[in-house]
Amino acid sequence: MKIAIAQLNPTIGDLSGNARQILEAAQQAASQGVSLLLTPELSLCGYPPRDLLLQPAFVRSMADTLNQLAKDLPPQIAVLVGTVVPNDRAVQTGGKPLFNSIALLQDGDVQQYFHKRLLPTYDVFDEDRYFEPGQASMAFAIDSLKIGVTICEDLWNDEEFWGKRSYEASPIEDLVAQQVNLIVNLSASPFHMGKQRIRQAMLHHAAIRYQTPIIYANQVGGNDDLIFDGNSSGFDRRGEMTCRANAFEPDLVLVEYDHTQQDLCLNPNQIAPQPENDDAEMWSALVLGLRDYVRKCGFSKVVLGLSGGIDSSLVAAVAMMAIGAENVLGVLMPSPYSSKHSITDAVQLAQNLAIKTEILPIGDLMQSYDRTLAELFADTEFGLAEENLQSRIRGNLLMALSNKFGHLLLSTGNKSEMAVGYCTLYGDMNGGLAVIADVPKTKVYSICQWLNSTGQKLIPAHVIVKPPSAELKPGQVDQDSLPPYDILDDILHQFIHDNRSPDEIVASGHDAATVERVIKLVIRAEFKRKQAPPGLKVTDRAFGTGWRMPIANRWLPAAAHPATITIKP
Amino acid sequence: MKIAIAQLNPTIGDLSGNARQILEAAQQAASQGVSLLLTPELSLCGYPPRDLLLQPAFVRSMADTLNQLAKDLPPQIAVLVGTVVPNDRAVQTGGKPLFNSIALLQDGDVQQYFHKRLLPTYDVFDEDRYFEPGQASMAFAIDSLKIGVTICEDLWNDEEFWGKRSYEASPIEDLVAQQVNLIVNLSASPFHMGKQRIRQAMLHHAAIRYQTPIIYANQVGGNDDLIFDGNSSGFDRRGEMTCRANAFEPDLVLVEYDHTQQDLCLNPNQIAPQPENDDAEMWSALVLGLRDYVRKCGFSKVVLGLSGGIDSSLVAAVAMMAIGAENVLGVLMPSPYSSKHSITDAVQLAQNLAIKTEILPIGDLMQSYDRTLAELFADTEFGLAEENLQSRIRGNLLMALSNKFGHLLLSTGNKSEMAVGYCTLYGDMNGGLAVIADVPKTKVYSICQWLNSTGQKLIPAHVIVKPPSAELKPGQVDQDSLPPYDILDDILHQFIHDNRSPDEIVASGHDAATVERVIKLVIRAEFKRKQAPPGLKVTDRAFGTGWRMPIANRWLPAAAHPATITIKP
Repeated sequence: MKIAIAQLNPTIGDLSGNARQILEAAQQAASQGVSLLLTPELSLCGYPPRDLLLQPAFVRSMADTLNQLAKDLPPQIAVLVGTVVPNDRAVQTGGKPLFNSIALLQDGDVQQYFHKRLLPTYDVFDEDRYFEPGQASMAFAIDSLKIGVTICEDLWNDEEFWGKRSYEASPIEDLVAQQVNLIVNLSASPFHMGKQRIRQAMLHHAAIRYQTPIIYANQVGGNDDLIFDGNSSGFDRRGEMTCRANAFEPDLVLVEYDHTQQDLCLNPNQIAPQPENDDAEMWSALVLGLRDYVRKCGFSKVVLGLSGGIDSSLVAAVAMMAIGAENVLGVLMPSPYSSKHSITDAVQLAQNLAIKTEILPIGDLMQSYDRTLAELFADTEFGLAEENLQSRIRGNLLMALSNKFGHLLLSTGNKSEMAVGYCTLYGDMNGGLAVIADVPKTKVYSICQWLNSTGQKLIPAHVIVKPPSAELKPGQVDQDSLPPYDILDDILHQFIHDNRSPDEIVASGHDAATVERVIKLVIRAEFKRKQAPPGLKVTDRAFGTGWRMPIANRWLPAAAHPATITIKP
Repeated sequence: MKIAIAQLNPTIGDLSGNARQILEAAQQAASQGVSLLLTPELSLCGYPPRDLLLQPAFVRSMADTLNQLAKDLPPQIAVLVGTVVPNDRAVQTGGKPLFNSIALLQDGDVQQYFHKRLLPTYDVFDEDRYFEPGQASMAFAIDSLKIGVTICEDLWNDEEFWGKRSYEASPIEDLVAQQVNLIVNLSASPFHMGKQRIRQAMLHHAAIRYQTPIIYANQVGGNDDLIFDGNSSGFDRRGEMTCRANAFEPDLVLVEYDHTQQDLCLNPNQIAPQPENDDAEMWSALVLGLRDYVRKCGFSKVVLGLSGGIDSSLVAAVAMMAIGAENVLGVLMPSPYSSKHSITDAVQLAQNLAIKTEILPIGDLMQSYDRTLAELFADTEFGLAEENLQSRIRGNLLMALSNKFGHLLLSTGNKSEMAVGYCTLYGDMNGGLAVIADVPKTKVYSICQWLNSTGQKLIPAHVIVKPPSAELKPGQVDQDSLPPYDILDDILHQFIHDNRSPDEIVASGHDAATVERVIKLVIRAEFKRKQAPPGLKVTDRAFGTGWRMPIANRWLPAAAHPATITIKP
């Protein structure tokens, strides 16, 4: 029996467009003799729909779209579609008003619903905000094949694999007890570095443990800060991968189930290659995330400031790859403090990428601000306020271009900067999307080095070797204010990703004063991050929806105070 | 028997400071013969601690602080303290790692823990992210009085009162079945307009329904976007209020339980008056929210732009009341498009409030931006980009003052503007706190009118009567771009608060084209709101932590696209 995985890229809320994608995949699959098509979790509305779920008209419209889709599908194929279903008992018995469900569409109608039981409510996930957990795991049959249905998190609770349980219920055990022949998992599982390895190992483990083949169908594409990597795949009962869809691209993958063997058949031609390493994978994620944000917000062109530094160079390269060189405008905004190489490196980069540039010197504007503020700032020293003004002049010029020509402004700050606040609110933080806000500085370097190793050397060598600098006063370099980036990034990783205390980080071998300083900077910079544009999540803990910290906060007391602190102007 | 409510104002994460507050309240209560002191939910860390709860060192430190507090308390008093408790079974059985609990401190030790059972996960609340629900409601006895303990949401599930259940469990019924003499509810229940009326009616109803007296202890103070109004109170078994703490101020209230009557005694002297109307109440909330944000972030002074308009006038008045006129700096930034009254009204306001002002004309900077952009903008019309630049010049100047002098910048946009995007990102949206971001424009007027009715006429009459205008081009008024504010605010309220569809809003009597236009504006402005400073929540649905919308979103399709749209530059 032939089963297909439609690895789709839905747009949030675009019910008719998403239904059309499902219909087209079903038509294509049916023409190849497929009996059952799998689509991702919430494939009808896209994941995550967030507070759209609180609008009753949205929920009603999903039901209407689902019913119409059932009628439109080719008769010979059954399709599993992700949708929401009202919890009719909520008012009487208490509980959330919706289920996160899969609908089995067959013979022109909805035949059965399957409700998600394990609802992730951590990191970027808020499913308890909307959904009631399903109480039972259920199966259905096609061609005498008994198929158990799980939705994403339902499979992420294997205490053997994780060393602990996260939820009391175990949907997979319940299905195995029902003697299903096959388990399908319809997912919307966002990317972070290393996640595909974990996912693959987990599915491999589950297939062996329960001696049951598993087909995993994941969403692909970028939705605001989240990037879905696809990587849909099949595992036979020995835990061997039988197929894998493309990473970071929509795909339609055929899976053959052999009734005699009671197992999935290996199809080596259907195992898409993986990115060659973590740098390559992160690059692909950023490209997809940028492309989809631009496209799904309805833009076609982007603008960004080019400083000649490595961050803006990487972002420009990602943008060029995502939407084409002809759609990327780089703006050079030299000040009297800019080094000569800030121009020559940026120009070289733009030539390498074949993107258009403009030059807007900011000296005249700096003088005008000085004149305007002269009386008020008399008898004060050049400092933070003046440094910030340069960054904010640039931010204003970029937004003026964005408003005038309808280009989306990209901000170019990296995660290390965002963590310690080495960035200017309303200055270089300006933008509709913070492309590398979740990429630590050391990783920015390694991605650029990998990129240059793949062929054309897109990033000019001097950009990679020169010491990073904001160039907001003469001779300034980042390491005047910050520890070396390899040390900084390790401290940050321990604090942000591992939730370690300062004492524990010191015990791992770092200087106590440095640790204390870095952590205070992180806490103080919370007010800046609260006003940052969405950043593409590529690690297991990104600032943004998965990082919910109070601003007025005296834990690990930060001696000085939020908005007064801007260590890079 | 004497019981006291300590209506405390904790600072998030300030464990030792918060413990000191509890200790001082206990000492004061003990000296008045009180046997039992109640403190709010999570009184040890402040509510809401958010992702600080994910740091194990934070949880350990809370346990240490709690144990020390138990030892420090006067021996003759028992104290209920809000804290978190590890869920030791989480790893084996699944579940969240913490309980949201109340500790009974007595005789130098923790005698008992009570776990919160109903965990709010909606609007601004994320309790399922951190907490495992308690499985049972429990009581303890003092002086033969059996006291049932509930925590905040535990009491908000009365299907008689609400017409529906929100949760399956009913802690109050479980406690009544245990024949408790008294129920206490330890809360951190944030303010919104009208909430105190609901809360009081709900407690009144519960006391009568279960024939059991109830003492309600609420947190007070501002924590980022949330304002806690206090209003702690007691209700006897007939549902009569026996005492009520001050609104919007810390307080210590004595409650007498009469063993013979088996009821709370009425104490008319301990019933604090309520604000005279909704305007007065919202004013008090804003004053407290601003004062606490400034104080808890470690600032003492604020700066804001004064346009002569009603929004900045109200914010200046709130700031003056919150932190004193001597700590408020108003900045006038006239352009060639500014009307004469924009200066005279702002100066009059500043005189009324006795705050200091500075004048920074922006004409020179506008010309400098024009020169810098002349070549790129040649052959384009004056439009959005140019209008936005004026707002962004002002935003930069205000941030320069903030950076130079360490004043917190207040932004002055109202909720109607934030809803439709009639505000400039990186311009007038700049600030550490958006004071009236949750106050609709019509309410801004009514608060100002109420304020002027209370005595000195702080808001100049002309500010209230003149047509609102951004003054970014000659002769511009808000109503060139927007429907009249009474119509706009009603459409917004139906969409934002009631989750009504455009069709339903039209059916309520509004023009279809207007409704469509307003809702498209709301959807398109999502990218701006994502980058807005925290805004003080004063309604039942504020933008910010309680409004989680996708940006790239095609539901109710907004024809044009996010970052290109800025209807007020």
